[in-house]
Amino acid sequence: MTISTPILLTQAEIADLRKEFGRTSLMGKTIAAHINELQDFMRLPIDVPGHGEAGGYEHNRHKQNYTYMNLAGRLFLITEQQQYADFVIALLEEYADKYLTFDFHVQKNTNPTGRLFHQILNEHCWLLYTSLAYSCVSQVMTPAQRTRIESQLFEPMLEMFTVKYAHDFDRIHNHGIWAVAAVGICGLAIGKREYLDMAVYGLARNDTGGFLAQISQLFAPSGYYMEGPYYHRYAIRPTCLFAEVLNRHMPEVDIYQYKDKVIGNTVKALLSTAYPNGQFPALNDASRTMSITDMGVQVAVSVYCKHYGIDDNLLGMAKIQDRVWMHPCGLALSRAFEQAQAQADIGIPFWPSVELNEGPDGTHGAQGFIRMQDKKGDVSQLVMNYGQHGMGHGNFDTLGITFFNRGQEVLREYGFARWVNVEPKFGGRYLDENKSYARQTIAHNAVTVDEKCQNEFNVERADSVHGLPHFFSVDSDVIAGMSAFANQHYDGLSMQRSVFMLALPELESPLLIDLYRLAGDGEHQYDYSHQYDGQIIRTNFDYVCHQEVSTLGHDNGYQHLWHIASGKPSGTALVSWLQQQTYYTWLGTSSNEHSEIVFTRTGANDPSFNLRSEPAFIYRTQGQSTLLASVLETHGYFNEEFEQSVNARGKVSNIKVIGHNEYASVVEITTSESTVTLMVSNQLSTPTSEHSVTFNHKTYQFSGHYAVEITAIKQEK
Amino acid sequence: MTISTPILLTQAEIADLRKEFGRTSLMGKTIAAHINELQDFMRLPIDVPGHGEAGGYEHNRHKQNYTYMNLAGRLFLITEQQQYADFVIALLEEYADKYLTFDFHVQKNTNPTGRLFHQILNEHCWLLYTSLAYSCVSQVMTPAQRTRIESQLFEPMLEMFTVKYAHDFDRIHNHGIWAVAAVGICGLAIGKREYLDMAVYGLARNDTGGFLAQISQLFAPSGYYMEGPYYHRYAIRPTCLFAEVLNRHMPEVDIYQYKDKVIGNTVKALLSTAYPNGQFPALNDASRTMSITDMGVQVAVSVYCKHYGIDDNLLGMAKIQDRVWMHPCGLALSRAFEQAQAQADIGIPFWPSVELNEGPDGTHGAQGFIRMQDKKGDVSQLVMNYGQHGMGHGNFDTLGITFFNRGQEVLREYGFARWVNVEPKFGGRYLDENKSYARQTIAHNAVTVDEKCQNEFNVERADSVHGLPHFFSVDSDVIAGMSAFANQHYDGLSMQRSVFMLALPELESPLLIDLYRLAGDGEHQYDYSHQYDGQIIRTNFDYVCHQEVSTLGHDNGYQHLWHIASGKPSGTALVSWLQQQTYYTWLGTSSNEHSEIVFTRTGANDPSFNLRSEPAFIYRTQGQSTLLASVLETHGYFNEEFEQSVNARGKVSNIKVIGHNEYASVVEITTSESTVTLMVSNQLSTPTSEHSVTFNHKTYQFSGHYAVEITAIKQEK
Repeated sequence: MTISTPILLTQAEIADLRKEFGRTSLMGKTIAAHINELQDFMRLPIDVPGHGEAGGYEHNRHKQNYTYMNLAGRLFLITEQQQYADFVIALLEEYADKYLTFDFHVQKNTNPTGRLFHQILNEHCWLLYTSLAYSCVSQVMTPAQRTRIESQLFEPMLEMFTVKYAHDFDRIHNHGIWAVAAVGICGLAIGKREYLDMAVYGLARNDTGGFLAQISQLFAPSGYYMEGPYYHRYAIRPTCLFAEVLNRHMPEVDIYQYKDKVIGNTVKALLSTAYPNGQFPALNDASRTMSITDMGVQVAVSVYCKHYGIDDNLLGMAKIQDRVWMHPCGLALSRAFEQAQAQADIGIPFWPSVELNEGPDGTHGAQGFIRMQDKKGDVSQLVMNYGQHGMGHGNFDTLGITFFNRGQEVLREYGFARWVNVEPKFGGRYLDENKSYARQTIAHNAVTVDEKCQNEFNVERADSVHGLPHFFSVDSDVIAGMSAFANQHYDGLSMQRSVFMLALPELESPLLIDLYRLAGDGEHQYDYSHQYDGQIIRTNFDYVCHQEVSTLGHDNGYQHLWHIASGKPSGTALVSWLQQQTYYTWLGTSSNEHSEIVFTRTGANDPSFNLRSEPAFIYRTQGQSTLLASVLETHGYFNEEFEQSVNARGKVSNIKVIGHNEYASVVEITTSESTVTLMVSNQLSTPTSEHSVTFNHKTYQFSGHYAVEITAIKQEK
Repeated sequence: MTISTPILLTQAEIADLRKEFGRTSLMGKTIAAHINELQDFMRLPIDVPGHGEAGGYEHNRHKQNYTYMNLAGRLFLITEQQQYADFVIALLEEYADKYLTFDFHVQKNTNPTGRLFHQILNEHCWLLYTSLAYSCVSQVMTPAQRTRIESQLFEPMLEMFTVKYAHDFDRIHNHGIWAVAAVGICGLAIGKREYLDMAVYGLARNDTGGFLAQISQLFAPSGYYMEGPYYHRYAIRPTCLFAEVLNRHMPEVDIYQYKDKVIGNTVKALLSTAYPNGQFPALNDASRTMSITDMGVQVAVSVYCKHYGIDDNLLGMAKIQDRVWMHPCGLALSRAFEQAQAQADIGIPFWPSVELNEGPDGTHGAQGFIRMQDKKGDVSQLVMNYGQHGMGHGNFDTLGITFFNRGQEVLREYGFARWVNVEPKFGGRYLDENKSYARQTIAHNAVTVDEKCQNEFNVERADSVHGLPHFFSVDSDVIAGMSAFANQHYDGLSMQRSVFMLALPELESPLLIDLYRLAGDGEHQYDYSHQYDGQIIRTNFDYVCHQEVSTLGHDNGYQHLWHIASGKPSGTALVSWLQQQTYYTWLGTSSNEHSEIVFTRTGANDPSFNLRSEPAFIYRTQGQSTLLASVLETHGYFNEEFEQSVNARGKVSNIKVIGHNEYASVVEITTSESTVTLMVSNQLSTPTSEHSVTFNHKTYQFSGHYAVEITAIKQEK
């Protein structure tokens, strides 16, 4: 047995961290916060409980135990307080005494079970953090203590993960990163370097498994992770931790340069999906509230800054995080932040717009993120999914969009139907309503055809298709847009969605413009749905509020929607609502003659109150090939507390479809001061393609993917 | 014409304020914030618009004009920047040129109309603030400018208020305070002191009108204002402003000592209603979001601190306000705050529990406010209305309660159905649903009998009755409670509600205990309703979610409630929900054999989406004389972003009714560690009354209003 030294810290680095203790730097605040949290937890008696419910006390306690051991190990080194080492040692000894007396959990889903947790994923986490903690304190343990902990706890775990569950160890999956990182770090912690080799190169040492295979195969060339940011941020923590371990203990891999900097690339891809307030869009069946303040993202930002460089947007993120990773990487960020702050106030991040391709070679569609800043500095962000179905639990919402500004998601993603770690809600697991509602097309800001889900809610079929990018054009300050096709998601129908943000001088914020075209055989019903939040302020049509309310349909999510009200607009429909302090006015139309606006609310057929009660409105129309077109204006200000309201009505007065065919779509938008004509190519085109279409005896010519013409309206006297 | 000097500031005081400019004191922050706001507004071209919609641009612009003139006047003196004086002068000249060219608005409700606004109330406000502004800048105006403004603007306004609308000037009403303060201050500003006399003593100078009559008659002896805190905070600003004017210009009145310090008394009464986060309970048909950060309350807190003294709770309020009145009164508070903060961190206010009597002589019932602090310092606040019907627009909710802790209202008040200043929502006026829903008994946390509103929604009848206080007992650290009767609110039924907060060592927060007794003739249906917010987590009974949803009833607010689900508990019902980061578990029962829990949501028969969609649950039972009893436990913690959940189930397991009769009620509550027996007198009793009642062959004896016995449960091995 060799006495291990701290895996992630040198003596000099520890001394540097110690200097931040008591300061108001990000690192100083981080250390102080961690001490507080740890002290709170250490007041409880030590407890290593047996089996319990998922999400219940036992589960949480094991998680807390590893979380606080991980902090205590480093805090022992930084503060030189023996109590923190004693805490780790006492708790590890208790685990060592009990671990092998616990049987394996009874398996309830496809995940193999551990002795502490229902799925070995959690046991991997446990091993990773406690191994790091052990490496910090083993120098002050007796040989007997070390033997006991290694032989009764760490070695059986390593055996379990690499022998009993060998089939799982090399699987390419976000869980796999936790597995290899845990095994590699534990191997280092107990002086068995063969486990590090196994973790890096796979059990067979032939590149079909192990960390290098994982990071080579899990991410698209863009760095995007197909399950979306929520799961990406879960995988990013062991990715970055283990990268930093390899940087220190296997320098020959040159991990931060590996595969064209895949580590930095994927961290940057993750960060570039975040909304301006730091929350991640809930793409692909995920939590709505996960954000960059997650500990894993803190580690990722610190690692990125140390090894790939720092810019204003990263500093803006660090400001939202208000913490750094308690490690030399975090110290580098903390120091840079301190310097920058001395020069000027650090603002909210304004990441460049980015299209993140999907699939192993980047050809399976993409996720598009467009951002535009208004005159006051607020950032509007538009997200469109035209990529892959994101694995087994993924949503069926290709061409779905979300829209964010003024600190809130406006066109909203419901997120998953799941109350993570809330034990009375099905142990915190996915709820039935995740399948029956949250993953269905109608739950998203998309078009549902004939009340059916895309790909008939068939995962295999969904996995076999993907979106087809058309253009992603973000070079202009006036207009930015993206367009994509999804031609295989409904039988016999091709779909194209083109979304833009347009800056007009008379508008407070960029105008969202949306052209959704569906073409194919036969007549269909199109439900163009908008998930909003807040209070309806006005409409430009009458509607009937139903006295008795039934569901909007019977299947594909419709069974969960109360049909609250509906009305038939003559011409373009206007729906305006107030969300928190901002008014939004939506104007929608189509190439069809008739339409109906249906107001819905989730909550029907929800026998355990598992759904949140949320409103939506649907522009419903029937037709053959159809162009649906809408604008969304952000305007005004309301403050209930101060009883202030300004510009409650907005300035956009109309949108109409001039025409659409297989070559192009043309719409015209009218504001109080301008007429805007937008022409979009409906065929895959290049920036130099020439287009000419004629509608109502008028010919529209343009080159490139699209064109916009803005004409000032002459003011009448 | 005399050149007026600043009405509210001396040269020495101005110099003192100037010293705070640029500092980080509360006054320094206030000055900086006001300069920012004013600069923003001054960038707009000057505009004095004509008539417009209530809540529309014109209305708002006139309000902004007076608001910013009021700031600019003082900022001119404090900063010595001529631009601020120029702004006031230019704008006043524009008003002077236009004012008499505007006709009177067309009258749409009972309020007389002005030339600028739909109701003269707003024109009073305009005059008050601009007169103050004028007094700050008239020294740098030309005689011609002064003449023009006084003769074409101020004098016609004074004439209008005291001659044309003389009948309204002496009316005792919160609007009347604005009228007299405006007239008095304007009189001083233009050197016509007779208007000050009129404002103080009434038109007839005989004490039937004027400021002294207003403040003598508007408030109960407790200082409570019958329309509730929302309207009180609106009246408090002119009250305090004009008091300060009289303090300076009519010292013989000795205004701050007048009528046993009625000014200080009523300010303190207002402040003592606020929730720990500074928001006012929306008592009596009011906004849910009004808080102590309102400018009027800032003025009131500053005036109170200067003339009546400062304590920790006032400092706590100043901390929430983060501003002071830009006046020597505010400077006194700012300095005290600075000193106190140098000693120790200033915490959230923890006002003592208080019972505020109602009516001119304090005999028309009361409003009760009980507060209790938990181990972590969080304050739980329980509010019960057992006073008067609060004037024409008041709610019908005598014995209604609200409950607040952990920064949120838990048993919630819907507040008024009104979107103040939101022009497209009926000009920001009261909506029809205010009568049809928000003021009805079923909209509150109360018991609705036979689906009828209290007092049959008859204002005259409601005005003729009031609650009858029984006890208000807040001396113990373990239990605090209040009890009252409402015997005239339903024909043939007397009602008593007794509510308590009980601190038990095993519970995180005080337990809310509620005993609601109804006695009288015949059998009735009792709907014991609970307005909550959040997500239902679990129940202890099965319920049916309806496939088709209809309204719970046809009248008295029931027509607005969707009947979402219902179930029949066997024995005590349990409903547990998650609101933001806290779990709440409610256990309810009654002396009747059968009961049903009905889950509702507002929004039915709401043809303009005027209502907010909010959930409630109703414990429904039928019986003759009945005791309804419940507890509400606050427990656990959930953080969705960090995916943490602890103690999702709580520790209280049961409440049962032992018995009740005309003499007393006895209930028993069981937690994981204790059995609690609570005995309450059902007859008006004194602290030394002796009671003895026998239920199920067991005799319960106690003295005073109530008694509680807590027995530890022996833990089984």
